[in-house]
Amino acid sequence: MKELHNRYTFFVYPQEIDGNEQLRLSPLESYLLNAAGLAAEENGFGAVEMIRQGITWVLSQLSIEMKRLPKQYESFEIETWVEDYGRLLTTRHFVVYDKQGEEMGAACSQWALIDIESRRPVNLQSRPDLVKFATGENGHIEKPQRIGALTDAQKVGQHKVSYSDIDYNNHTNSMKYVEWMLDTYPLEKLYQHRIRRFDINYLREALYGEEVYIYRSASGEGDEIDIRNTEGTSLCKAHIQFE
Amino acid sequence: MKELHNRYTFFVYPQEIDGNEQLRLSPLESYLLNAAGLAAEENGFGAVEMIRQGITWVLSQLSIEMKRLPKQYESFEIETWVEDYGRLLTTRHFVVYDKQGEEMGAACSQWALIDIESRRPVNLQSRPDLVKFATGENGHIEKPQRIGALTDAQKVGQHKVSYSDIDYNNHTNSMKYVEWMLDTYPLEKLYQHRIRRFDINYLREALYGEEVYIYRSASGEGDEIDIRNTEGTSLCKAHIQFE
Repeated sequence: MKELHNRYTFFVYPQEIDGNEQLRLSPLESYLLNAAGLAAEENGFGAVEMIRQGITWVLSQLSIEMKRLPKQYESFEIETWVEDYGRLLTTRHFVVYDKQGEEMGAACSQWALIDIESRRPVNLQSRPDLVKFATGENGHIEKPQRIGALTDAQKVGQHKVSYSDIDYNNHTNSMKYVEWMLDTYPLEKLYQHRIRRFDINYLREALYGEEVYIYRSASGEGDEIDIRNTEGTSLCKAHIQFE
Repeated sequence: MKELHNRYTFFVYPQEIDGNEQLRLSPLESYLLNAAGLAAEENGFGAVEMIRQGITWVLSQLSIEMKRLPKQYESFEIETWVEDYGRLLTTRHFVVYDKQGEEMGAACSQWALIDIESRRPVNLQSRPDLVKFATGENGHIEKPQRIGALTDAQKVGQHKVSYSDIDYNNHTNSMKYVEWMLDTYPLEKLYQHRIRRFDINYLREALYGEEVYIYRSASGEGDEIDIRNTEGTSLCKAHIQFE
């Protein structure tokens, strides 16, 4: 493993797989975020330390491309490293390997660091304790794409944010948006068409008790999905390319 | 560790905690079931081997009593063993320990083994490969209680079974019922009143696409909850004792 890279082993439990006996996208994202969290922790800029400093990491965008998904009771490894720190965003890459060291897929995430009180972003370049972990190394897939306004979007679902959706500060867990999105598809679609690439943009957090609406448009290449609050404001958008 | 006991280490990730920064009940159940699954696997009667034989384990009842819940990024251990095999049900116990070896709580589960085709139960006493793992040892808490018909139950929620709720055979994951139940409470209730004991009876599985209704009654000591399908049939019942 290269310098400044971190690598963690995970294991697929029965409740994380779908009808194809493969890891669902939402627990996969969970493992990626856990790898990011463990690496940050190990390098001294984990969630707990940041909160002690009055700041917190916010996931802005994520892209995932898997060639093969881990199966039930399969263990797999996630290697992760930071490419760079811009003023506002840092880019962290991931590669997923099976036990034989074969690449199963890759992901790329972009994060902001914000002040918990003011909600204003911290200038990442002003933090030498972070910048020293920038490797300058590209990832294995393209960075997340910015998803624009949807055309011809149809409302395909709705959800009320509940206790099981939220984390310690009453904000919705990132993977929950993915669940709400995929839950709008018929099972056959999800079982017969593998997701080749998934891009997600986190714009604004859904709060406890809030009613959200899921809109979908199939006008371009792949599907675009937009989760909106009752006022029509976008909270989270995704682009899904099925095989 | 005693003979025929198995012990596994787990770790609490940020998305598994609630506003008290403690592990939620649903991921705790998940860890208990994963410990049971790993122990069964290690002893030659895991899910995969059973399915190869045309049979499958079904969780019938579970009770949980926690004195303290693991916190974010805390690792903890689950020790598990089988007490006995009746004709229809086997009893498996759990004790949860923190890193210092202090007991955090305990759980008790009862399982049936059914034929996948006929859905009929297998006589567990006719299986020497299982019976040899019976220790005859009691658990640290009482066995799950059987929950009767609810009196004065009020409908407090509903849910449509979706892709993210189901496992490889389109049946609802056991922990999901717990989520649907707890999601009917106001946050303040869950944050201010610790769950002292939780008993759950799994009666019939909620299937993909099914609409379920959550009923609750506070007539006795603690709350009783019943998840029913559109025909009013009970799928899952629980008894919650808050502190």
